[in-house]
Amino acid sequence: MEYSIHLDRLTLGVCYYPEHWPESLWEQDLDRMLEAGISVCRIGEFAWSKFERTEGAFDFSFFQRFLDLAQRKGMKVIFCTPTATPPAWLTEKYPETLNAFPDGTLVRHGMRCHCNHTSPVFLKLCARVVEEIAGHYGSHPAIIGWQIDNEINCETNMFYSEADSVAFRAYLKDKFGTLEALNQAMGTVFWNQEYTDWEEIFVARPTLANSPNPHLLLEQKKFISENSVAFFKMQADIIKKYRKPGDFITTNGVFGHIDYQDLNRWALDFITYDSYPNFAYSLGGANGNASAFGRLRDRVSGLSLARVRSISPNFGIMEQQSGGGGWQTRMPQPAPRPGQMRLWAWQSIAHGADFVSFFRWRTCNVGMEIYWNGILPWDNRDSRQLEELRVLRDETARAAELAGSRYAAKVAVCYHYPTQWDGEGDIFHGPLEGVSVMNWFAACQVAHTPMDLLCLGEDLGLEALAPYDLLVLPHIALLPEKTAGLLKEYVERGGRVIFGARTGFKDEFGRCPMRPTPGPAAELVGGTVREYTLVPEDSRTAVVLFGRSVPMPRLNEILEPEDGEALGRWYTREFYDGQPGVLRKRTGKGEAIYVGAAFSEEMASALLSYAGLEEPYAQWLDLPQDIELAVRKKGDRAYHILLNYTDAPRPFTCHGPMTDLLTGLPCEGEAELPPYGVMVLA
Amino acid sequence: MEYSIHLDRLTLGVCYYPEHWPESLWEQDLDRMLEAGISVCRIGEFAWSKFERTEGAFDFSFFQRFLDLAQRKGMKVIFCTPTATPPAWLTEKYPETLNAFPDGTLVRHGMRCHCNHTSPVFLKLCARVVEEIAGHYGSHPAIIGWQIDNEINCETNMFYSEADSVAFRAYLKDKFGTLEALNQAMGTVFWNQEYTDWEEIFVARPTLANSPNPHLLLEQKKFISENSVAFFKMQADIIKKYRKPGDFITTNGVFGHIDYQDLNRWALDFITYDSYPNFAYSLGGANGNASAFGRLRDRVSGLSLARVRSISPNFGIMEQQSGGGGWQTRMPQPAPRPGQMRLWAWQSIAHGADFVSFFRWRTCNVGMEIYWNGILPWDNRDSRQLEELRVLRDETARAAELAGSRYAAKVAVCYHYPTQWDGEGDIFHGPLEGVSVMNWFAACQVAHTPMDLLCLGEDLGLEALAPYDLLVLPHIALLPEKTAGLLKEYVERGGRVIFGARTGFKDEFGRCPMRPTPGPAAELVGGTVREYTLVPEDSRTAVVLFGRSVPMPRLNEILEPEDGEALGRWYTREFYDGQPGVLRKRTGKGEAIYVGAAFSEEMASALLSYAGLEEPYAQWLDLPQDIELAVRKKGDRAYHILLNYTDAPRPFTCHGPMTDLLTGLPCEGEAELPPYGVMVLA
Amino acid sequence: MEYSIHLDRLTLGVCYYPEHWPESLWEQDLDRMLEAGISVCRIGEFAWSKFERTEGAFDFSFFQRFLDLAQRKGMKVIFCTPTATPPAWLTEKYPETLNAFPDGTLVRHGMRCHCNHTSPVFLKLCARVVEEIAGHYGSHPAIIGWQIDNEINCETNMFYSEADSVAFRAYLKDKFGTLEALNQAMGTVFWNQEYTDWEEIFVARPTLANSPNPHLLLEQKKFISENSVAFFKMQADIIKKYRKPGDFITTNGVFGHIDYQDLNRWALDFITYDSYPNFAYSLGGANGNASAFGRLRDRVSGLSLARVRSISPNFGIMEQQSGGGGWQTRMPQPAPRPGQMRLWAWQSIAHGADFVSFFRWRTCNVGMEIYWNGILPWDNRDSRQLEELRVLRDETARAAELAGSRYAAKVAVCYHYPTQWDGEGDIFHGPLEGVSVMNWFAACQVAHTPMDLLCLGEDLGLEALAPYDLLVLPHIALLPEKTAGLLKEYVERGGRVIFGARTGFKDEFGRCPMRPTPGPAAELVGGTVREYTLVPEDSRTAVVLFGRSVPMPRLNEILEPEDGEALGRWYTREFYDGQPGVLRKRTGKGEAIYVGAAFSEEMASALLSYAGLEEPYAQWLDLPQDIELAVRKKGDRAYHILLNYTDAPRPFTCHGPMTDLLTGLPCEGEAELPPYGVMVLA
Repeated sequence: MEYSIHLDRLTLGVCYYPEHWPESLWEQDLDRMLEAGISVCRIGEFAWSKFERTEGAFDFSFFQRFLDLAQRKGMKVIFCTPTATPPAWLTEKYPETLNAFPDGTLVRHGMRCHCNHTSPVFLKLCARVVEEIAGHYGSHPAIIGWQIDNEINCETNMFYSEADSVAFRAYLKDKFGTLEALNQAMGTVFWNQEYTDWEEIFVARPTLANSPNPHLLLEQKKFISENSVAFFKMQADIIKKYRKPGDFITTNGVFGHIDYQDLNRWALDFITYDSYPNFAYSLGGANGNASAFGRLRDRVSGLSLARVRSISPNFGIMEQQSGGGGWQTRMPQPAPRPGQMRLWAWQSIAHGADFVSFFRWRTCNVGMEIYWNGILPWDNRDSRQLEELRVLRDETARAAELAGSRYAAKVAVCYHYPTQWDGEGDIFHGPLEGVSVMNWFAACQVAHTPMDLLCLGEDLGLEALAPYDLLVLPHIALLPEKTAGLLKEYVERGGRVIFGARTGFKDEFGRCPMRPTPGPAAELVGGTVREYTLVPEDSRTAVVLFGRSVPMPRLNEILEPEDGEALGRWYTREFYDGQPGVLRKRTGKGEAIYVGAAFSEEMASALLSYAGLEEPYAQWLDLPQDIELAVRKKGDRAYHILLNYTDAPRPFTCHGPMTDLLTGLPCEGEAELPPYGVMVLA
Repeated sequence: MEYSIHLDRLTLGVCYYPEHWPESLWEQDLDRMLEAGISVCRIGEFAWSKFERTEGAFDFSFFQRFLDLAQRKGMKVIFCTPTATPPAWLTEKYPETLNAFPDGTLVRHGMRCHCNHTSPVFLKLCARVVEEIAGHYGSHPAIIGWQIDNEINCETNMFYSEADSVAFRAYLKDKFGTLEALNQAMGTVFWNQEYTDWEEIFVARPTLANSPNPHLLLEQKKFISENSVAFFKMQADIIKKYRKPGDFITTNGVFGHIDYQDLNRWALDFITYDSYPNFAYSLGGANGNASAFGRLRDRVSGLSLARVRSISPNFGIMEQQSGGGGWQTRMPQPAPRPGQMRLWAWQSIAHGADFVSFFRWRTCNVGMEIYWNGILPWDNRDSRQLEELRVLRDETARAAELAGSRYAAKVAVCYHYPTQWDGEGDIFHGPLEGVSVMNWFAACQVAHTPMDLLCLGEDLGLEALAPYDLLVLPHIALLPEKTAGLLKEYVERGGRVIFGARTGFKDEFGRCPMRPTPGPAAELVGGTVREYTLVPEDSRTAVVLFGRSVPMPRLNEILEPEDGEALGRWYTREFYDGQPGVLRKRTGKGEAIYVGAAFSEEMASALLSYAGLEEPYAQWLDLPQDIELAVRKKGDRAYHILLNYTDAPRPFTCHGPMTDLLTGLPCEGEAELPPYGVMVLA
Repeated sequence: MEYSIHLDRLTLGVCYYPEHWPESLWEQDLDRMLEAGISVCRIGEFAWSKFERTEGAFDFSFFQRFLDLAQRKGMKVIFCTPTATPPAWLTEKYPETLNAFPDGTLVRHGMRCHCNHTSPVFLKLCARVVEEIAGHYGSHPAIIGWQIDNEINCETNMFYSEADSVAFRAYLKDKFGTLEALNQAMGTVFWNQEYTDWEEIFVARPTLANSPNPHLLLEQKKFISENSVAFFKMQADIIKKYRKPGDFITTNGVFGHIDYQDLNRWALDFITYDSYPNFAYSLGGANGNASAFGRLRDRVSGLSLARVRSISPNFGIMEQQSGGGGWQTRMPQPAPRPGQMRLWAWQSIAHGADFVSFFRWRTCNVGMEIYWNGILPWDNRDSRQLEELRVLRDETARAAELAGSRYAAKVAVCYHYPTQWDGEGDIFHGPLEGVSVMNWFAACQVAHTPMDLLCLGEDLGLEALAPYDLLVLPHIALLPEKTAGLLKEYVERGGRVIFGARTGFKDEFGRCPMRPTPGPAAELVGGTVREYTLVPEDSRTAVVLFGRSVPMPRLNEILEPEDGEALGRWYTREFYDGQPGVLRKRTGKGEAIYVGAAFSEEMASALLSYAGLEEPYAQWLDLPQDIELAVRKKGDRAYHILLNYTDAPRPFTCHGPMTDLLTGLPCEGEAELPPYGVMVLA
C-alpha cells in the first residue's frame, strides 16, 4: 500500500497559532492569508491548555470560534493533537510521565517533547484529550485533516525513564521469551553481562566511558520505534472514530529511532515534512566547509526530501522555511535572500510535495522561537515574504497539474533502519553512511541524475526495485538474508547493485557471525573481505578503477575474489597496494559491484558514468552543474524542474520546444535561469 | 546620592590572613607592611570557624589579638563578614543551605560561595554570626570599614536549590499577584507552558537542549539580584547598629546577576574592585588574538575599571594583582613583568581608585590558591614586588592630592542590567554587546578620549547625562520607554546619542511587542528596522559612511527612514546593498544616530571623529596610540595620567610646561615614557 | 626483594575465552595454537557467571572441562579471578557495591570495573568466589599461574561511592588520629574548610568549578592505592592457600592511583603488561603531530615498557596487540602493518619481557570489543597474524636464552607516585612531567642510550641507584627529605643528578612549606629559585648552555646560586634575560644540575652529551636514529636488539663480528635492517 497525499492541485498553507494573538486579529489574518494564496491553516499543536486547562476541565469554545470563522472565510484547517506539550499540571502531578536524562534526572516542563511514551498515566491522559478533541471537532466542515503530535523525537530520541525500563522489559520478554534466548542474542557472555532475572534489565544506564552493551542498545532503539508507533496508533485509532470521510491523518518531520514505514502502516495516511534549508548554516555546512555539504548548502535539503519521498512518494510540507531561523539559545541562521523562500518551496515541490505550508504566519513574539521568522514580522507590517507568497500563489495555480505526478529516478540509494541505529553506537561503520550518501547525492546532483532514497524495509518486494537501474547499498552492515535474496533476484533480472564497505558483517542483533564479510552478499559479489583497516588521518588511499585513480576514504578492505573479479586494485603507500579493492560479478542479466571503502564523490561519479546514468535528460537539456534538475512524471507527461541555488544567473540550453509552466512562456535554445530562479519545463 | 569612597590622600593596603600564619609572624609582617607603605589591612573574610568553631560556640579572642596588635602598630583594618565560606558543620547539618547544580545535585563544601541566599536557616545563621562579629569588634579603634561577604556571585551567579524555588515563587506572587498576569508576562502560551498553580513554578530546571522559558529565566535573574541585595542589606543593617561613626561598608568585585545600583542603595557606602589585569592571559585575550582584546591585553582592565566607576565614581581596589595568578586547577597566568604591578596600581588610580590594596601580603601555602602570588613569596624572602611597593609608597605620597579628583569623560557607553541578563540567553543580541563595547573602548583608548560606562538605571536623571557630549547605547534590547524619554530630552538640549542594532525590540520581560524596532527609540532616530539578518561567517558587510567603507559586523539591519535620513548605506554583496544601514535625525539642539549592526572599531572611530571627540587633549599632549591617557580633575586642576603598557619606551610631546607629580620633575616638549612607565602630569 | 618473572626460555601465550565459543571448537583452537607456538593460555577473566550463575550457586564443570582438555593437549594455563566484572544479580541486589560518578550517580552494570573496592558485601562476595575458584582449580596440573582481576583502575581510577566515603574516613582517622592533625595537614584553614566531625568528610564531591581541596584529593588517591592493594592482597592470600608450588600470582596492566611497588610487595610475584602500540593513533600521537610522540609513534611504547620494568625487571606481556584495536564507541586504531605484530613482540622482549601473550586468539564477535582484532578474525580463517606468530615461534626458540637477561641502562628517569597524583590536580607542575619524560625518552632513543624509569619509592636504597651514571628527576614536586638525602649520598659517590623545575616545592601533603625551592634539593644544587613564571604561549624562552641556545619551555624559574654556579643563563625577550636558568654544583665525586624549566628534547640531548652517555655502544654499532637499540645482558653476554619502526629498510654498520640470534647468520660491516625488521645481535 502506498502512503501518499492525494490532491488535485498544488496547494499552499500556513502554520497559525490563534492562541498567540488577540482574537480581534484573527479575521484580518485570515483575510490576508487568503489574499496571498493560503487555503489551509494548521492549528492546535501545543495548545493542550486551551482544551483542558486543569485536569479533566475540558472547554472547546476557543478553537470552536476559530473553526467557525475559518469556515465562514473559506479557510481549510489541519487540526493537531497537542500531545507534544503536556501541561504543567500534568507533569507536576505525575512526574512518572517525564522522560529522563541518561543519569535519571527528569526532563522538566518548559520545553517540549519532555514526556516518555510509556507511562500508563501519560498514555491515558493523552488518549482522553485526543478523544475529547476528535469527538468535539471531528465533524467540523473546515477540517480537512489531522496532525498527530509534533515532530516526534525531535528534541531527543532516547528515553531513560523508569516507565521506559518497565516497558522495555515487557518488550524483551515478548520478543525473546526466555532469559537464555535474550542472553544469547545480546551477547551478554562478553564481560559477564548475563541476566538471571528480568528485573536486572533496564534501558541504557550510566556506564563508565558511556559504553553500554551495544546489542541491547540497538534493541532499545527498536523498542523506541515500536513505542512511538504505538503512541501514534493509539491516537490515530481514536481520530478514525470521529473524522469525516476523506479527512487525512498525518504528522510532520522525520526524526530518529522511528521506522516510518511502520508509522505509516499503523497510524498515518502519509507523512509531511518540515523543511528548513538554512539549517545548512547552523549545522556548519555553509561556512567555508569544503565538503559536498559545504559546497551544496541549501541544495542539500533535496537529500532530506528524498528521504521523505521514500516514506510517502507524494507528500506535504507542513513547515516550509519563510524567514531566518533560530531559537534564542541555538540554531542561528541568516535570513533567506529574496527569492529563496520561493526557490525552496519549488525545491519541495520538485521532490514530490503537493502541499506546501509555511512556518509560520507571523513570527512569535514570546518564548524561545522569536527568531524563527514567519511570513510577517513581529510588527505585522507587510514583508517581502508576503510578496513572494503572492508570486507562489500565481505560480502554483499555473502549475497546479503537477499535483499527483511522481518524481522519476533510476538510481536509488538504500538505507536500513537497524543498520543506522546500530551505526550510531559504532564509530567504525556508523560514520561511513553519512559520508557516502552525501557523496552519492552530490554526484547525482551535478550529473543531473534524479536519485531516490529507498528504505530496505521488511516488506520490500521486487516490484519496489523494478523502477531502478541502479541500487546503491552504501554500508548496510546488518543486511538481512531476505534482502540479499531479493537483491539477487533483482540482479538476475538485469539490475545493478553497488555495495560499500562493511556490508553484511553483522546480524540482526549487531553481532558478527563466524562467516566471511559481506555475509549474505558474498555470493552476489563473488568474493570476500580478507581484512579491513581504518585509514589513518594522514594517509591517502585510492584504487585504480577504469584506468583512473579514485579516492577510497575512511575504512579500507582488502578483498579476495572467488568467482568475482577484481575490478579495482589498491593504489596506496599502505601495505595492501595492488591487492583487490573493488569486486564485480555478473549474475543473470545484471551485476553486483563491491567497493571496499566509503564512497568518495569521485567514486560515485565514476560508477554513475560506468552505469550510463549521467545526464539522463541530455537529449532535452544541457545544464551547468549549478542547476538542479528534478523530473516529475504523470502518465506520459514529464515536468523538468530547474532550480538555481546561486545568486547569479545561469545559462542553459533547451534542445526542444518546451513551455515554462510558471510563466506560460516558451523555452527553446539558449536560455537563462535568473538568480535563485525556477522553471518548470514541460 | 553618590556612592564614593572619601579619602584625603591616596592610600595603599594589603589583604592579610592572620589565620594562615603562625601568630609569631604577625608583628614582623605588620612592620614590613608599614615600612613599605601599607596603612590598611583587610582581614577576616573566609574565617567563620575562627569565630564560631561549632554551632553557637562563639570565640572572639583570635582576631581581638590581631586587632589590638594592629592598633598598637598603627595599622588600620577593614574587617570582613565571613559568609562566603560557611563551615562544614553548617552545610552538613543543614544541607538545605547549599546551592545546587542545574540538575539538583548539591554544591558541596570545599570551595567557596556554595550556599544559596534564600534558605531561612542560612539567613538566620549568617545574621547571627554577623551580629556577633559586629557586636564584638564594631567599636575597635583599628577598624575603618567593613567588607560584606567576598566577591558575591563570583563562582556562580545562578541558583538552583529548593530554597530558591520557594523564594522565587514568593517573589513572583508578590510581583504579579495572579497566575494570569504571570502567564501573560512570561509568554507561557508558547509551547503550552501555562501555570495553573504557583507550586508548578521552579527556578530553571533541566530541559531538553537546555532551553527553558527565556522570560522566566530573565525574571529569575532579577530575583537573584534582589536576593543578593537583600542578603547584603541584612548584613549592612546589622553592622550599622555597631560600627563607629565614619566607618564605611563596602564589598569587593563586580559579578553577574547583581544590580550594583541597587546594592549601593540598600547596603553599601561604595564599591571596591578586585583588579587582575593578567586575566587577559587566562581568558584568552593575550595569546596571539587579533581582536581588540588581544591587542590591548592588560590595558583592557581599564574597561572593567570604567564599570566600577559607573557604580562608585571614586572607589577602592580591594585586591590589586601583585604576582602571577592561578588556582591549582585553572586560570593560569604568567607573572607580571617588573614594573607592571606599579603600572596596574596607577591604572586603577587613573580610573578613579583612591585606595589600592594588594592581593595579598604573602602567597598562601596551602589550598587552591597557592599560585595567586602575593607581595611576598611562600619562602618569605624579600621580593621585587616589595621593592615596587616602596616605589608606590613614595609616588602615592607625592601625588596624594589626586584623592577625590574625578575621572573626566565626555563620552559614555551605556549598559542596562536587564538587557545584559536577557542577552545571556539570547545568541542573537547577547553577544553583540561585548564586541561593540570592546570596540568603543579600543577606539577611545587610541584616540586618547576618556570614556565612561554609564548604567541605565531606574533612577537615572538628566543631570547624570549632562556631563557627556556623546552617549552610546550599543544594543539596549530592553530599552525602557522612560529611558527613551530621557534621551529625547538629552538630545533636545544638545546631546548626541548613538544606538546600535537591536535597540528596543524587546519589552521589560524580554517579549517582542507588535511595534517596529527600535521601539521607544524609533521616533528619536526617525526610522525603523524593516528586516534583520545574521551575517554568515563567510560574508563581509559594510556601509558607506562619511565617504568611506566601514565594517558592519555580526547582525545587519535594513533600515527605513521616516523623518530621519539615511546617513549610511549598505555596501555588500548581500541583497540589501545600497539600502539604508545608518540613520540620523536631528531633534532640538542635538541628534540621534542609529547603526544597524554591531560596532566595529572602525565604526566607533569614525563616529568619535564625527562627534569631534578624538584627541580632546591634543592641545596639551601629543601621544602615540600605545600610551593610555586618563584625566582626573578636581576643581580647575587637571591631572593627565600617562600609562605605557608596552615593554619599550614611548616618545610623546608635551605642549605646555607641566610637572610630573610622581617625580616632581618638569615636563615640556619632547619626552619619553619608559617601558611600563607612568607619569601624572599636572 | 625483586619481583620478576622467572622463565628459562622466551615463551609465547594467548588470551582465550572458552565461554565465547562453541565448546566443539576448543580442541581445534588448542591444536592451532600449539602448532603456531603458543604454549600458555590465559582464561577465566570476566567469567564470574560461569562459576556462580546466581548467588551462592557454584558450578565448576565448565572450566574443569577446559582445563582437562588443556592438560591433555599440553597447553599451560594462567587462570584469572573474575572480580572485574561482577554479575548483574550482584550489583542489582547490592547497589552499594557500585562505584559512582562524581555527582553520586551510580555506575551501572554493562561495562566493567563498575564496582568500588570498599563495600563490605562486595569484598565478601569477591573473597568467596576467589576461595571457591582457587580451592577448586588450585591443584590442577595445567595451571602455571594466576591473574588477579583485570586491568584494575583502567576504566576509572576514581571512586565516589558512599562505601568509599566510609572507608576514607577510617583511613584518615587511622592516619591522622585527630581532626586537629587532619585539618593542619590538609590546609583546611584556607577557605574555612576546617572539619569538626569525621562525618563531615567525604571523598571528593561536586564543588563549583570542580575545585575541591587539593590536599584531601591527594590523600584520597593515596587511599585508593591502599585500597586497591588491599583488594589484591585479599585475593592473593586466598590463592596462596591453594596454588601449587611454583605457580605465580600476577596481574595485568599499569594504571592510575596504584603504587605498584606496594602492589608487588603485598600481592604479586611480578607484574605483566598489556601492550597496544597502536594506541599511538587513537591517543592522537600519530596523526601529523609534531611532538616527540607524533614522531616516534609506536616506538613510544618503549616508554611504557620502561615503566613496567621499573616494577618488575623481567616481566610478562599478558596482552600483546595482534590486530587493529578499538571499541565500538571509541579508541579507533588502524590495523598493524605486516611485520608490526612481530616487531612489537620483540619490542616487548627487548625491554625485559620474557613472556609474550597475544590478545586475543580470535576476535570477539559480540559486545563492545568486536574491533579488538585477534590472531584470527571473526570468520576463523587463517590470517597473516597466524603466519607472523609462526615466525615468532621459531625466532623465540632460537633466541630462547634471552630469558632472564637484564635490560642494561646507565640513565634512569625517576618518577614519584605522590608527585604524579598531586600533579593531576595542579596545572602548574602536573603537565610538565609528561613533556619532560617524553623528551628524555626521545633524546635517549635517537642517541641509542638505553634508559630506565625508576620509581622513587619509600624503600629505595643506594644499591638501586648504583647501576646508573645519571639520574633525572624531572619535576618531583613532592621530593621527600629522605630521597634527597639518598641522592646526596649517590652524588658524593660519583653519581650525577639532574633536576627540573618545581622540584621539592611541596611537602608530602602537597603544601608549600616556607622555605626556598627546591626545598630538600637546594643544598645539593647549590642555589634556589627566586621566582617562577608560566611562559605565555606566544613567548619563546631559552638558556645559553654549553655555548648554544637551548629551549626552556612551559614554566621558567629565575635561579640564584649560593655555593653552586650558573651553568646556563636565560636568553629571551622576557625580563629575566641574562639571569641564571641552570645551576650546577659538585659534591664529593659527583654533581647535581638544576634546570629551571620543563625539559626540551634539545636540553635532554645536550645533557646526555655533557654526561658522555650518547651512543654508548658506538664501539660496536653505528646506527641511524630510526633504529632503536635495546641491550639486555646476562653475565658477560650482551644482546643487542635492533628494531626498525619504519616501513623502509635502514642501513647500519656492525664493527665487530656478531651473530643474529633470530637467523643464526653472522653480521659484520655494512648491514641493513628490513622494514619493521628486528635483529638480536650477540
